Amino acid sequence: MTSPLTAAEVRRFRALHDKREREAQGLFVVEGEKVVTELSTDGPPWEALLVTADSGLATRPGARVIPAADMARISHFPTPSTAFGVLRLRREVLGPRELAQGRTLALDGVQDAGNVGTLLRIADWFGLDRVVMGQDCADLFSQKVINASMGSFSRLRVVTAPLAEALATVPATVPILGCDLHGEDIRRLPPLEHGVIVIGSEGRGLSPAVAARVTRRVTIPRFGKAESLNAAVAAGIVCAHFRR
Amino acid sequence: MTSPLTAAEVRRFRALHDKREREAQGLFVVEGEKVVTELSTDGPPWEALLVTADSGLATRPGARVIPAADMARISHFPTPSTAFGVLRLRREVLGPRELAQGRTLALDGVQDAGNVGTLLRIADWFGLDRVVMGQDCADLFSQKVINASMGSFSRLRVVTAPLAEALATVPATVPILGCDLHGEDIRRLPPLEHGVIVIGSEGRGLSPAVAARVTRRVTIPRFGKAESLNAAVAAGIVCAHFRR
Repeated sequence: MTSPLTAAEVRRFRALHDKREREAQGLFVVEGEKVVTELSTDGPPWEALLVTADSGLATRPGARVIPAADMARISHFPTPSTAFGVLRLRREVLGPRELAQGRTLALDGVQDAGNVGTLLRIADWFGLDRVVMGQDCADLFSQKVINASMGSFSRLRVVTAPLAEALATVPATVPILGCDLHGEDIRRLPPLEHGVIVIGSEGRGLSPAVAARVTRRVTIPRFGKAESLNAAVAAGIVCAHFRR
Repeated sequence: MTSPLTAAEVRRFRALHDKREREAQGLFVVEGEKVVTELSTDGPPWEALLVTADSGLATRPGARVIPAADMARISHFPTPSTAFGVLRLRREVLGPRELAQGRTLALDGVQDAGNVGTLLRIADWFGLDRVVMGQDCADLFSQKVINASMGSFSRLRVVTAPLAEALATVPATVPILGCDLHGEDIRRLPPLEHGVIVIGSEGRGLSPAVAARVTRRVTIPRFGKAESLNAAVAAGIVCAHFRR
């Protein structure tokens, strides 16, 4: 049975594009047949699961089949997808001694949403224990970050925190690694069980307050002439060494 | 002296957004103060170099200062930049035995322009000898590829070729490496002096004709649960191992 959205519902779901509206409603959107299907298996419960009749999820208990025209009205995609899930937004808080243990990826001012999502995939692939997002990063719950993370947002512990302050809680025995052009050759870095890898923004690198907390500067050797690597590519290479 | 664009010039420069127009005019655009300045030092000669009065290039011989309103009309950016360079488009052709020597990055159906540009930066950073782009990749001369490459397009040899046919010319002594989930552990791969790294599209991986040419399957070990890494991130990790 197809159940059209009311005008008020269309407005409410569409509004989730906007960060202030997400905060006000306490909800965010996951869109796309593949990722919604994946999250439906073992993921968090949906606040709403809206699908079109041609979705593989149309017969799933709890799914609400809506007309394709309604999906086009609320979709965050240029080409509307067949599945639109709404989840409760919950911001995780960093524990007082949490960064003393395990492997952390910390993002400092990474504003490109695609890069943030790609970085979450990397943290998930390499089984890091958490991602700390500084307050000037792209919003974790924006559609672009959620999409680019390919579901990794749901499998990872992601906390938002003032980054320089958070790094101040890291004990001296746990290295805080920052990537630049004049550090130790990453190829000589031993695998690390406990540590924080800090990634800065593409354009400006690390902020001074965060850079001051870095205890170990590492460098990916350059053989050619490019001025830099993309931030997510650099993070991937550092994580691969971290866990070799 | 500011020299406004004629209506015909505005049309001609704007049209370079479009691939068919680029081919017809034999020109493409590099935009942005930073990359245009970098290329002005030791790069190729500009067919046209259009700048606004506040550009650092305004006094450069050969630069034409145009009104900001004209720049806004031709700019490929949402926020118009201060420098718009036009270069002659030249497609390089693969030599008959070229893939037998050195290090090659080969792109199979990588349609995301940002990923293609990021891959060119990686090839440039790691000093690879060339990039071969299969015919179903994003257009090298599109604004998004050129921008994301951050100038690397001008320092690299990039050829477009039917990829499966090109790989058929690789001698048996030169490995063709493809990344998947069931290959050799990349950490055990020795550095390679001669070889081809093939990168597939994000969604579909390698095409069957190209996959059939791969002689060595390699895998980046996974420690967590992400289904895959971004294609450019994977390429960066493989190249870092390739050159360690």
